[in-house]
Formats: sequence, structure tokens, C-alpha cells
Amino acid sequence: MIDIALFGLGRIGIMHGKNLMRNKDFNLKYVYDIDKNLTKKYSKILKAGSVNNPNIIFKDKKIKAVFIASTTNTHIKFILEGVKNKKIIFCEKPLDLSIKKINKCKKKIKNLNPKIQLGFNRRYDPGHNNLKKQLLKNKIGKLEKIIITSRDPAPPTISYLKSSGGIFRDMMIHDFDLCRLYLGNDEVNEIHAFTSSFVPFYKKIKDHELAVVTMKSKKGVICVITNSRHCSFGYDQRVELFGKKGMLISGNKKENSTELFNSNQTNSQKPFLNFFIERYNDAYNIQLKELISLHKNKTKSRSTFEDGYLALKLANAAYNSLKLKKTIKV
Amino acid sequence: MIDIALFGLGRIGIMHGKNLMRNKDFNLKYVYDIDKNLTKKYSKILKAGSVNNPNIIFKDKKIKAVFIASTTNTHIKFILEGVKNKKIIFCEKPLDLSIKKINKCKKKIKNLNPKIQLGFNRRYDPGHNNLKKQLLKNKIGKLEKIIITSRDPAPPTISYLKSSGGIFRDMMIHDFDLCRLYLGNDEVNEIHAFTSSFVPFYKKIKDHELAVVTMKSKKGVICVITNSRHCSFGYDQRVELFGKKGMLISGNKKENSTELFNSNQTNSQKPFLNFFIERYNDAYNIQLKELISLHKNKTKSRSTFEDGYLALKLANAAYNSLKLKKTIKV
Amino acid sequence: MIDIALFGLGRIGIMHGKNLMRNKDFNLKYVYDIDKNLTKKYSKILKAGSVNNPNIIFKDKKIKAVFIASTTNTHIKFILEGVKNKKIIFCEKPLDLSIKKINKCKKKIKNLNPKIQLGFNRRYDPGHNNLKKQLLKNKIGKLEKIIITSRDPAPPTISYLKSSGGIFRDMMIHDFDLCRLYLGNDEVNEIHAFTSSFVPFYKKIKDHELAVVTMKSKKGVICVITNSRHCSFGYDQRVELFGKKGMLISGNKKENSTELFNSNQTNSQKPFLNFFIERYNDAYNIQLKELISLHKNKTKSRSTFEDGYLALKLANAAYNSLKLKKTIKV
Amino acid sequence: MIDIALFGLGRIGIMHGKNLMRNKDFNLKYVYDIDKNLTKKYSKILKAGSVNNPNIIFKDKKIKAVFIASTTNTHIKFILEGVKNKKIIFCEKPLDLSIKKINKCKKKIKNLNPKIQLGFNRRYDPGHNNLKKQLLKNKIGKLEKIIITSRDPAPPTISYLKSSGGIFRDMMIHDFDLCRLYLGNDEVNEIHAFTSSFVPFYKKIKDHELAVVTMKSKKGVICVITNSRHCSFGYDQRVELFGKKGMLISGNKKENSTELFNSNQTNSQKPFLNFFIERYNDAYNIQLKELISLHKNKTKSRSTFEDGYLALKLANAAYNSLKLKKTIKV
Repeated sequence: MIDIALFGLGRIGIMHGKNLMRNKDFNLKYVYDIDKNLTKKYSKILKAGSVNNPNIIFKDKKIKAVFIASTTNTHIKFILEGVKNKKIIFCEKPLDLSIKKINKCKKKIKNLNPKIQLGFNRRYDPGHNNLKKQLLKNKIGKLEKIIITSRDPAPPTISYLKSSGGIFRDMMIHDFDLCRLYLGNDEVNEIHAFTSSFVPFYKKIKDHELAVVTMKSKKGVICVITNSRHCSFGYDQRVELFGKKGMLISGNKKENSTELFNSNQTNSQKPFLNFFIERYNDAYNIQLKELISLHKNKTKSRSTFEDGYLALKLANAAYNSLKLKKTIKV
Repeated sequence: MIDIALFGLGRIGIMHGKNLMRNKDFNLKYVYDIDKNLTKKYSKILKAGSVNNPNIIFKDKKIKAVFIASTTNTHIKFILEGVKNKKIIFCEKPLDLSIKKINKCKKKIKNLNPKIQLGFNRRYDPGHNNLKKQLLKNKIGKLEKIIITSRDPAPPTISYLKSSGGIFRDMMIHDFDLCRLYLGNDEVNEIHAFTSSFVPFYKKIKDHELAVVTMKSKKGVICVITNSRHCSFGYDQRVELFGKKGMLISGNKKENSTELFNSNQTNSQKPFLNFFIERYNDAYNIQLKELISLHKNKTKSRSTFEDGYLALKLANAAYNSLKLKKTIKV
Repeated sequence: MIDIALFGLGRIGIMHGKNLMRNKDFNLKYVYDIDKNLTKKYSKILKAGSVNNPNIIFKDKKIKAVFIASTTNTHIKFILEGVKNKKIIFCEKPLDLSIKKINKCKKKIKNLNPKIQLGFNRRYDPGHNNLKKQLLKNKIGKLEKIIITSRDPAPPTISYLKSSGGIFRDMMIHDFDLCRLYLGNDEVNEIHAFTSSFVPFYKKIKDHELAVVTMKSKKGVICVITNSRHCSFGYDQRVELFGKKGMLISGNKKENSTELFNSNQTNSQKPFLNFFIERYNDAYNIQLKELISLHKNKTKSRSTFEDGYLALKLANAAYNSLKLKKTIKV
Repeated sequence: MIDIALFGLGRIGIMHGKNLMRNKDFNLKYVYDIDKNLTKKYSKILKAGSVNNPNIIFKDKKIKAVFIASTTNTHIKFILEGVKNKKIIFCEKPLDLSIKKINKCKKKIKNLNPKIQLGFNRRYDPGHNNLKKQLLKNKIGKLEKIIITSRDPAPPTISYLKSSGGIFRDMMIHDFDLCRLYLGNDEVNEIHAFTSSFVPFYKKIKDHELAVVTMKSKKGVICVITNSRHCSFGYDQRVELFGKKGMLISGNKKENSTELFNSNQTNSQKPFLNFFIERYNDAYNIQLKELISLHKNKTKSRSTFEDGYLALKLANAAYNSLKLKKTIKV
């Protein structure tokens, strides 16, 4: 059993907390949130100790790993503390909203042999990951196109949206990262973005309801990412890889495989699994298994600090394209 | 262009008439029905001559082929006349309801080199026929099980039902024949039947609304056929072949490949094509092509008089099983 | 945490042991097998105490529940001991091979308020169970037909087969039970069976490789069950309910939702989940949750002793039909 | 029967000729190609008169309709002659490569009450057209995104490619038009394009193997079109409409609905229908029916001269975006 601590008790932090509580390989020793009431409340629910000073966690030698799910602007600070104190780190995306700050951190931890797993859950999804495996097995020949659809069932809270960094850094960052996974040693060279909002609220907070980004890699691979903050039929998560010899599709998941036929329709199935907690449940378990392997020095992380950094650069370039109405060279 | 005549102007006769009228390879020269008004009416609609005496058709040397879609008890008579007069014959199923009568006819036409195509349209369906091809290519290894589902969207008229010969001879006869197609040189050895009726009317006319037949072949292949006289979601026509190495399924057809996703459901598709006219439209065209090949002596029929005879024997055995509540040796 | 003990360390016992070990709500205190070496070996693997005398388990007051996965002929004995000692009981199917023995047991435990969950895992499968829910919601109107396909990826060991009670009691018993679930307060009235074996070995041990059973209920519902001891493409588990207003299908599960398209094929997916451990994994977890509810007196079991008894009667009737080559009245 | 003449005997012209020959409502009276040998050859095959001077066709009062499938730079000339001589006109896409020339033509025919059907076959496809109908029925609420995939199984001949006008004007023009169909009274406002070529040949002839275009309409609808000149698994033709309340998908068509299951895979289906002749066969028949309705003054064309003009403008804007590496205002 690995002693672990959790920073941040928002929606995603609570989800990670529950996963850790249920997992026989981890002992959730501490939880911490900047809101003391939240810390108190969830220390009970998650059967963990309550801590109001993060340093207690970093100084506890028994704590082997920390889970950073606090607000984005605290990530870098906690990563630095964690790495200095030899903790294995799980950090939610995005790393930060400032490339400069990330760069500084990069230099500081460079020689400290950091063990960091970024929260790019799609890399751990058995379906999306199977596509990478099939690609490496040359099942579709040379890769020519990547098409990713990612739609949330419903927008997050207003307060979340306001500090999220915007649709490209908060949501599409997962898809930028997935493109990078499939591109392998190829790199994105050019990028273009369109966005749209049908609900006026998004314009008020200078964010976007829908977004589509196209990219072209150095080797000529074309990437298309479409995002939506709403989706009436569930959490729509699809990847399509098109190659010289064939195509691979990673589709959606449903609660069960039942179909209804009646006089109006045939093959009617349930809506997709509601959201990331359900859809990427397997992925979260695989992430936890990787943390154990990192602890035992048996593996490198599938999703690194560098991946977090490079995905953010693509998100920033997308904003640039939007502003300048141009194809942007990355 | 082949000069052709049509006997019988019921539902299926009219359908054949329209197919013939639209086909540039055939000239529908005559139509005949025992009901003179029908003959008159459809001779106009189908742009064909109207004949009240079948002999005019049989004696017309230019007529190369006859389409027999009249009531079942006239089939044998017209076949005999047709064969004697060197006509190519298309005859709807069933051949007749009396095995004895068929046997007599068999002997009479034996030496007349008859060219007869039975109306077993499923043999000509590209999907069901593709299963036979794949089977012969050994795609699923040795055949072990045949499972056929056949459900009509709605029952025919009462008057049709009363003279139809019952669900086994009128409807399941297609599926008995399909089993024989897949069995190839193997033969049905044992048979058992259950039926059921939820609408009381069927009992009144001594027919059945639902039926399930199981059979075992000499080589041990198990066959399951389920029929229903109603089906709310269209014309349900499926075949499943299970073998040592795999399984083949021939599925339903829809008007188009569109799907609807909303908050209640995903992948909702249209009901199946409504009925045999639409579902087996391709099959009917292929049947017409075969008639031309028969005319040119280029082929034998895929669906013979003998096939009609043997399918009827299975239908009769099914009735026997029902009556005696026993497994019947065929 | 509920203290629990496991009887029997064969394939299925080990699976249950691992599920219990991983579950934070249970403490697997003891394991027992008639083979002392097995007991020793798995007490380590499953981190449980090793017991060579079952009475130690029954007399341990802290043990709240027992898992009976030992050989079939020991089930009744352990159930009796368990019920007498107020244990909650999980028992694998079949209850026993002797109806007489079961009847005796029934009488003995009748007044002891037994809490017994039979191992009919399909009742707990979210897909198959969803069909029951939709049926009760009248989604397909009056039920008219039940069609169940169940195929194992590969046969069990010879020694297992020899003492299994045969394909109807060992394998199809699940499907007999499922039919009963969907029939609700209706009952099977008539039954007929065919079997077949393509591998000669099955005849030697007087068992069967394939089986098909048809049944008719008192209200006229027709049931079709087809079983196979082998299936090249995985564990094929499907249910189709056909009703007056529509049809419901519960389909197979795959490891992930990826599809491959190339010049030979489209929509090619992975084989089905390999076997019951994977396919009914969710079901096993739901079964464990029900045990906790039984412990808290919050529920009755979804799968009772009586269900085990009635399914076995159908299995026996199927053998009868096979022997007498007749439709058997149940 | 409508007397009709065909201009152009290339791949698409021959296809139209065969459709006309098979159709009982049309009499293909003349064929014409600039290559006299082709004219001669196909006048026999298509059982039509052979004409070396187009004027003979235009001056023949019995000719009610002309089919223009000749090289693109002759379209406008033949349209003008046809309209002046009161012929109903079918014209293949694109109208021309020069917007100026089209504009001139537009003015000339304005007051001549022209009856012109553009060859935008996708508008007549039952699947793609069903999406428009469902959209108008408000099945998915307000339209927010259009995603079109169009991939040819293999590139056309080099000589064709050289005079085709390039991928945007020759191939994607269909998809520009489809977007306009779904947008209804909304209009494309901004456009961006990326292209890529993995086979060097395309760069030599200044064309592209792959292309992706994104567009944003005045009302904020986002459109994504991806094209490929090759596709190993057949002719990939898909449309996805995403709206406030749901999603509609129009999928691919296959020769039949059979599936293969074996130890490597499940649900393996046939490649998609090979190419436009097969895929849009229904559409071509519906187009011919519309021509008859146009002749009888019963309808307006679903696909007009103006549609041809506006789709070409989008194609040109795409080239502009590519050249200037900018978002282009249309």
C-alpha cells in the first residue's frame, strides 16, 4: 500500500479521491484544499486525514505520492515542492496557463529525476490506446489524418469556466495531446482555429462554446479536432485515424449493449456514458497502476511534464490563429 | 426482349407484373386472372394484353416464358401445360399443397426437359446468397448450426390466409428451403415444431401466428427457424450460420443509412424495409436475369421444382410434429 | 467489512476468491477445498486463512456469509449447515443433480428464514437485466418470444465435464433461469430438445457439444435456447425478446470500441470478451452488493433457492425430451 | 418517353448514358463527343444516334433535354445553346472554372426561363437528403456543426486530374454544395484550408491528395470537410450534423448486410460500395425523375445553376486561403 495525499477537492479532485479510497493498493492519508470546510468535509467522506498546511504533506516521509487536482495556478508550486521532496506526482491538466512559468519549473526540476504523471487520461483509455498500438503494428499503413471529436455533455460551472484558461487550454488540450500521441516523432507545424458560441454567456466571459482546430504536421499529417461544451446524447469521445492502407476508429462507450426496436426505429441504443468519470473509469485505474510502477521504478510515465508543456503550446497557438485570423506556424 | 405472360393478379402477381413492365429485357404480352375484371384492370396498368383463356397463352409460339402467380391449386396444372408447350416457367411457392399431386407432375414432366424456376426469392438475395458463398469458401469451417428469423410486418388478408396452406407451407417454406440451400448435400433427418397465437383469429382458421421449428440433419447440423406473422419494426429477415471456425450473419436492409442521436437514445435507425417487395427487390431482378439465362440454355435454375417438392415435405413434417407432439423423422 | 469464507477452489471458486479479495467490503477469512494442497496454495494467494474442516467455518460466529463453489454434490450439505448456522449463502449453480435431494433440503430450511443467493450471474448482468426492466416498462408490449444464444469460447476440462451433470444442467441451466426471469408469473408448459456433437469425445462421456431447446409457456410465449461448448470468436451471450410492439436485444461486450477498416473489410471489431470472468464481471460485483444488502436485511435475493430448483426441473425435462424424442409436458 | 441527347463520353458521361439507356422514360436519341471514334463506339453500345455536330442536337425540336457531361470548359457554351433552344439541361459539376464566364452566362440566360439541373448528386441521395428533412423537422434542434467526409477509392486518370480544376473545384465542390444545402438560408462567411500530398505526383501537377476545409457561417455554424483522393476500404461518404438537441449521421452503403465473426475479429463487413456509380445509383435515378418533372413544369430543380456558381466561389476561396495562409472572408 502506497501512502498518498490529495490536493484539491473540486469535481475532479473528489473523483480521484474516491478512486483512491476504493483502491486496495493506496492509502489516502491526507486531503487538502484551500477551503478548510471542504477539507474537513471530504476528509470524512474519503476517510483520510485533514491537513490545512501543504507542508505537512511534503515533509511526511511516508507519503510516497501526491495527487495535484487543485486550481491550475497552484500546480507548478506543488510540483516543485513535490519533486524536491522526492514524491511521485500526479498532476491534472493543464500544467499552468503560463508557458514562462512552466519553462522555469522545467529547468528547476531537470536534475532532480522527477517522476511526474500528467492527467492526460485519454492516453490511458483502452480504446484510444489500442489505436496507437494498431498504428505501430502498421495496421493502416502510413498515417495521413487524425480526426478527433470531443464533446462534453454539459458545461462546467461558471466559476470553473472563468478560471479555466478557456476551451483550448482546458478542454481541447486533451485532444492536442492525443494528436501528439498518434503523431509519434512527427510534430505539428501549422495550426488554424475557428470557434463559435450559440449561448451568449460564452462571449461575456471571453470563452467559446464550440471550437474546431485543424493542424498540419511536418510530415504532412492533417489533424482535425472538434469540441463542444454541450452534447445532448452524452459524452461524445471519438478518434478516427486514416492511413494509406486503412482506417481505425475508437468509438464511444455505453452502459450496456442493449438495443430497442419498435415501429418508429430500430437499433436504438442508450445515450453514451455520461461523463469522464464513467467514460474514462478504466483509464483512471490504469493511471493508478502506472503510479505504482513509477514507485517501483519499473516504467516511465506514458504522459509526462513535457507532454503537458507541448500541448499547452498548441493551445496557445490556436488562440493566436483565432486572434490573427491566420494559419499559425508552431 | 423475351415475350412473357403472367398468370394471377393477386398481391404477388401484380408485383411481378410491375417488375416485368419496368424491365427492358421482357415484353409482358399477356396477363390472365380467373377474375375477368382483374385481368381487364391490370392489362391496362401493366400495358399488357388481356386474356381470359390460358390456352391462348400456351399456344402462342412467341411466348417464351410464363409467370405463375395464380392460386396455389392451379400451379401444377399451369406448370404441366407450360412444360408441354416448351415454355420457361417461373412458379411461386408453394408448388401445391398435395405431395401426391406434385409427385404425379414430377413423373409427367421428367422427360420433357423442363426449365422451371421456383419463387424461392431468398436464394437470390445478395446477402443470404453471400453466406452460401462464404460457407463454400470455408470461411467458418464446418457448418454446425443454422438460425433463421423471418417475420412479416403484418399478416396478409383473411381470404389469403384461409387458402394459404398454413404458416409452414406458405411462409416457413422459404426458410425450409434456405436451410436446404446451406445444408448442401446434407439432409434434414429430424424435425420438431411449436406454434403459438396471441390473436384468437388464427385458431379459428386453424392457422398459427408464431412458429418455431428445430431440425437436425444427418450430419448433425442443428437448424432453428422462427416465424412471426407480425413485426412492428418491419420485415425482419436474418440468417445466422455458426461453424467450427466462425459465424456468418446476413442482416436486414434499411431504406438508408441514417442514424439519430438525442437525449433519449443513440444510433437510432429507421425500421427495416417494409416487406418482400422492397427487401427482395434485388433478388427479383436476379431471378429475371436467371430466366434469360435459362432461355439461352446458359444455366440451370438455382431454385428447382425438386426444391419446391422437398421444402413442402419439411412443412408437412412440421405439421406432423405439431399434431403428434413428437420429434418426427423425415 | 463482512467476514466471509469460500468453499471450493476450482476455476469458478478462484474467480470468486479474487473478486472477494479485491472488494473493500469483504474480508475473506477462510478458504476451504477438499484438496488440502489447493487450500494451502490459495490461502496464500487469496490472503485468507486455510481450513481443512468446514465446521470451523460454520461454527465461527464472526463469519456472516459463505461462498459455496465446491463440487455440485456438496452444495446441499453446505447449504444446510450454513442455514442452520445463520450464514448468508452464495451457492453456485446447479443446486444439485437430484431433485429429490433438493426437495428434502427445501423442507428442512423452510422455517429457518434462509438467505440464499444462487449463482445465476446473468440475472445480475446490467444488459440482460435492463431487458427485464424495459419489458416491465412495456417497451415492447406483450412478450411473445424469448431467444437466447449462449456459447462458451472453449470446453472446460474433461474431469469437469464428467461430473458436471451434462450440458443442460451445467450450462443451459443459466438460460432456463433467464427464460424464467423474463416469463415472470408465466410458466414453461412444454419443452423439446435436440443435441449434436461434432467432436466424438462428447458421445463417449454421454454429453453433448451443441444443444437447442424450444419451450412453450402457459400463456403461449415461445422460448428458444441454443448452446455451444465452443465458439471461435469469444463468449457469445445474447438475448432477444420479441413482443407485440417491438424487440429488445442484449448484445455482447468487447474489450473496447475500436474498429478497423481496410481493403478486405470494414467495421471489424475485436472478438467478444473471452469468458464469464470478463463478461459477467459487473454482474459479480452487483451480486456482492446484494449479499451486503441481504446481510442488512434490506432486500430479498434476485436469484433464490427456488429458482435453482425450477431451472433444474427444466434441465431434467430437456433430457427427457431427448430420450423419448417427444414434446414433454413440464 | 423523353427524347434526350448526351454530350461527353468520358467516365461519367458513359455512366449517364447507361442509366438513360436502361430507363424506360427516356429515349437516348443522340450521343456526341469531340472524339469522333468515341462517339461512334458508344452510339452502338448505348443504342443511340451518333452526331458530330452539336447543332444537329440543339436544332432537333423533338429533343427535349440534353445531358452535358463533356469537358468542363464546354459546359457554359452548351448550356447557352441549350437554353436558347428551350432544352431542359442536366450539367455536370463544376459549371466552369471561371467565375467571370459563369456570371456572363447567368445574365444571358436570366430572362430565358432556363430549366437547369446541376449534377450535385449528393443532394438526391436518400440518406444525405433524409438528413435535410430531419433537420427541417427540428429533430436535432438548431444546427451548430456540419462534418462531411468524402474519400474516393482511387484517384482518376492523370489526364483527368490535369484538367479537373483541382481537388476543391473537382471533388470538394460536392461537399461545399452539401454544406450550402444544410445551411439553408444561412451563408458561409469565413473559410480556411489545409492540403497535403503523400504521393509526390500531386505536387507536380499542382494538385493535392488530401484536403481539409473549415468554414464558419454568418449564424455561427461550423463546417468541416475532409477529402482524400484514395481510400483503401471503398468510397467513404459520410455526413454528420450536430445540433442543440441531437446529432444526425448519414453513413456509408454496402453491397449487402453480411458480417463475419472468427477468432481474429467480429462484425467484419464488406468494404463500402466501390464508387459513385454504385453509391449514388439511387440518386441518379431520382435526378432522372426530377428531369421528367421539370419537363412537365411540375417542380423546380433541387440543384440549380446558382448552386453551381456559389459552390465554385467557395472552392476558389479555399484556394485563396491556401495561398495566403489566412482565414478568408467569403
